[in-house]
Amino acid sequence: MPDTALPPTIPTAPVTPAILESLRAIVGDKGLIADDQGKQPFVTDWRGSIVGNAAVVVRPANVEEVSKVVKLCHDNGIAIVPQAGNTGLMGGATPWPSHTGIVLSVGRMNKVLNVDPVGYSMTVEAGCVLQTLQETAASHDRFFPLFLGAQGSCMIGGNLSTNAGGVQVLRYGNARNLVMGLEVVLPNGDIWNGLRALKKDNTGYDLKHLFMGAEGTLGIITKAVLKLWPAAKDVATAWLAIRDPQAAIEILSEAHGASEDNVGSCELMSRTCTDMVLRNIPGTQDPLKADTEWFLLLEWTSARPKAEGAEGMAEKMEQFLADQMEAGRVIDAVIAQSEAQARNMWVIRESVAPASRAEGPGLSYDISVSISKVPEFIERGLKAALDILPSIRPYPLGHIGDGNIHFSFMGPKGMDRETLKQYSPAITRAVNDLVTSLDGSISAEHGIGIDKLDELSHYRSRIELDTMRTIKRALDPKNIMNPGKVLRI
Amino acid sequence: MPDTALPPTIPTAPVTPAILESLRAIVGDKGLIADDQGKQPFVTDWRGSIVGNAAVVVRPANVEEVSKVVKLCHDNGIAIVPQAGNTGLMGGATPWPSHTGIVLSVGRMNKVLNVDPVGYSMTVEAGCVLQTLQETAASHDRFFPLFLGAQGSCMIGGNLSTNAGGVQVLRYGNARNLVMGLEVVLPNGDIWNGLRALKKDNTGYDLKHLFMGAEGTLGIITKAVLKLWPAAKDVATAWLAIRDPQAAIEILSEAHGASEDNVGSCELMSRTCTDMVLRNIPGTQDPLKADTEWFLLLEWTSARPKAEGAEGMAEKMEQFLADQMEAGRVIDAVIAQSEAQARNMWVIRESVAPASRAEGPGLSYDISVSISKVPEFIERGLKAALDILPSIRPYPLGHIGDGNIHFSFMGPKGMDRETLKQYSPAITRAVNDLVTSLDGSISAEHGIGIDKLDELSHYRSRIELDTMRTIKRALDPKNIMNPGKVLRI
Repeated sequence: MPDTALPPTIPTAPVTPAILESLRAIVGDKGLIADDQGKQPFVTDWRGSIVGNAAVVVRPANVEEVSKVVKLCHDNGIAIVPQAGNTGLMGGATPWPSHTGIVLSVGRMNKVLNVDPVGYSMTVEAGCVLQTLQETAASHDRFFPLFLGAQGSCMIGGNLSTNAGGVQVLRYGNARNLVMGLEVVLPNGDIWNGLRALKKDNTGYDLKHLFMGAEGTLGIITKAVLKLWPAAKDVATAWLAIRDPQAAIEILSEAHGASEDNVGSCELMSRTCTDMVLRNIPGTQDPLKADTEWFLLLEWTSARPKAEGAEGMAEKMEQFLADQMEAGRVIDAVIAQSEAQARNMWVIRESVAPASRAEGPGLSYDISVSISKVPEFIERGLKAALDILPSIRPYPLGHIGDGNIHFSFMGPKGMDRETLKQYSPAITRAVNDLVTSLDGSISAEHGIGIDKLDELSHYRSRIELDTMRTIKRALDPKNIMNPGKVLRI
Repeated sequence: MPDTALPPTIPTAPVTPAILESLRAIVGDKGLIADDQGKQPFVTDWRGSIVGNAAVVVRPANVEEVSKVVKLCHDNGIAIVPQAGNTGLMGGATPWPSHTGIVLSVGRMNKVLNVDPVGYSMTVEAGCVLQTLQETAASHDRFFPLFLGAQGSCMIGGNLSTNAGGVQVLRYGNARNLVMGLEVVLPNGDIWNGLRALKKDNTGYDLKHLFMGAEGTLGIITKAVLKLWPAAKDVATAWLAIRDPQAAIEILSEAHGASEDNVGSCELMSRTCTDMVLRNIPGTQDPLKADTEWFLLLEWTSARPKAEGAEGMAEKMEQFLADQMEAGRVIDAVIAQSEAQARNMWVIRESVAPASRAEGPGLSYDISVSISKVPEFIERGLKAALDILPSIRPYPLGHIGDGNIHFSFMGPKGMDRETLKQYSPAITRAVNDLVTSLDGSISAEHGIGIDKLDELSHYRSRIELDTMRTIKRALDPKNIMNPGKVLRI
């Protein structure tokens, strides 16, 4: 938890024995976890950095039970922390230490209710594990384009509540863009049935977008209608040594047309980042020995099978890369000749997080700016951080097509966690000041939760915070729904 | 105005001479229109079916003036009807006859502030005419994919406020999907600066999606950051005679992959619809003499120029159409061999509205259902309407990729407007009951405005209407912002 975070005021009505019995009457014995050991994974975030409390973990089996539980809590002023996979990075799903209410886990609601391959949609419950949904789509020759590190354990309800990002946003948009309809239990227990499989519906305010990204503070997402896309049939993956970040955005800008709008991913990595992975993760290999500070992992994905003798993604990419070398943006490049080669490129990208943990303590900022400002941000951001701590070791990387940089640093060699922590507030302030001066976002995809509560209130305008608070107070006047997250009320 | 619409209760504070002078002090003489003749186009909808009132039309030159005007109205309880191009079909931008406040037109705020081709975005003022924005994008080798009938006079502020649709939604989404950031003047006059050119920003509630589709009832959109796409370089347009609507959705379902996700448009037309156009619009030609009741206008658009000798969009489409004929879905088809031929196909589609006006009185419903339910909707909907008035002449058409059918009817031959009007409530109820039973939308792209106010409150759940009202009351407690539209408060 950041040093700056003082616990916000949250409702402290207790779960009395009588209320516990009422909860049991709704969800049954198997829907209640009241012992400390059983509660532990639900009150601690996955990194172990936030250790919260809850009187009881409630695990309803269906939306009617969720509704009854929420109504009971509403009538008694008991605070609720909605939770799906509890894999968030900002503590949005983890209770505050001062929390005396319940954790409401949607994990038992994990059914795929319907798949409509012709209509390119599927209807699912909030507790479905993301990877299961990817696999369900694939088994119908369709693609559900939400991919992120935690996909084996995160759940779609949490993904939507935090408007998750990942490596396919460039092409398909954030989680909110993958949704046609939602079912949500409101803070008073009412069930809002917005579970419509509609691509167009201009009948009043768009409520679904309000619940997505609200991190469970306005209601509990219980079901969703998700959009699907055709499955990939022809994929070209390449590893590019490039001149600099400015070259990266120019390459991407031209790749859209050259690939027929089929750019799937475009991941920027600094040499320090790839070196860190190669140093720490056994079995990884440098795809390209090149004398440059910057690399790009570029993937084009087409839903049309490559026909015998016809031009496929790889041939189009080859032509494109030759043009980009000619233009001086690409120094050297290799297109994967097999799935194994492509996999190796992706393993490097996906191993950044484990490699950084092996490297010891560090700092990381999940920021975004408009795509055109990425080079300026990186240059000025590095200077700002190095001015404060010259021996810190930056390894920037990012989803460049989203203007989203994971602006990351290993601590100086030999510096322990506590010493590094002393520099953290100054570096955080410098980075976030720069982001704000460039009209960027201090949390591109990870959300606010507990961790960035104070950063948000520092950087957002009074008018914007007031508008958010007005909405929160109107929809949750008792402040029982995930209180003390996103906003101080 | 529909017979069922009773005027809602709206604030009636008058614009006194003193307030008029305060308005003049803010916007100057050229920002005020107080004479009846000058006001006329601002208080009447473009079809002339709604004739409203306003004390004065106020035309601010910039957001600061908008803010001051709104603050003045807020402090004095004066109702405001925000207006851009006033081309909406539901009366959302046109004042009620009982309106005693102002019309606030954004028409003078019509500057393109910035175009960023590398970052694929542009920042514009709300009063920019849509077609100007299409042309601006094209002049930078970019594409702004909002295309609709009124594009020569509608303005982007209105397009976003109604979340406009059009013929490119299938690929690019509704207007709300084309937006990265907004600037909005709130009902109390505060300026919300959400003008961020960010593809990712998970910092609290997504306010922009709340204002889009709210039809000006929650605030006035004054600027927007719009997304751009690569300009088209290789286009294949075809006219297909098809088996039936079920074939249409199956053809589309397979076209996504075959075109490499490059389906730009897919418009379904009934034979009665195309016959009506050919009969009424001079110069139009039937692209295909085929014995079928249904046609499809299919367009694939790639951003990659066709290389000499390589397979382009037309070759891919030819192969696809052969497969679809083999499968019995396509009866006959022709791919346009020139821009003129493609243009002729589009003229037929675009001439449906003028042709229907030439044909005399009619009825039309802008509905959507999930794509897979389109065939069932058409079959049952036709039966329901013909059961009520057997001699009515249906000519259904629609954006099939959006599940959006313009479910349209010419009146029986020789029947006058007044007689047809007597059947209208029963047919409307039958169509909308069917839509609702299929979990569809009674207004897919045209919105609610005045016209569908009572339909919305009839068909939406109490919980959904209450949630919308809660938001409206919280953000606009004095109910001055476009009162009596979308919702009765």
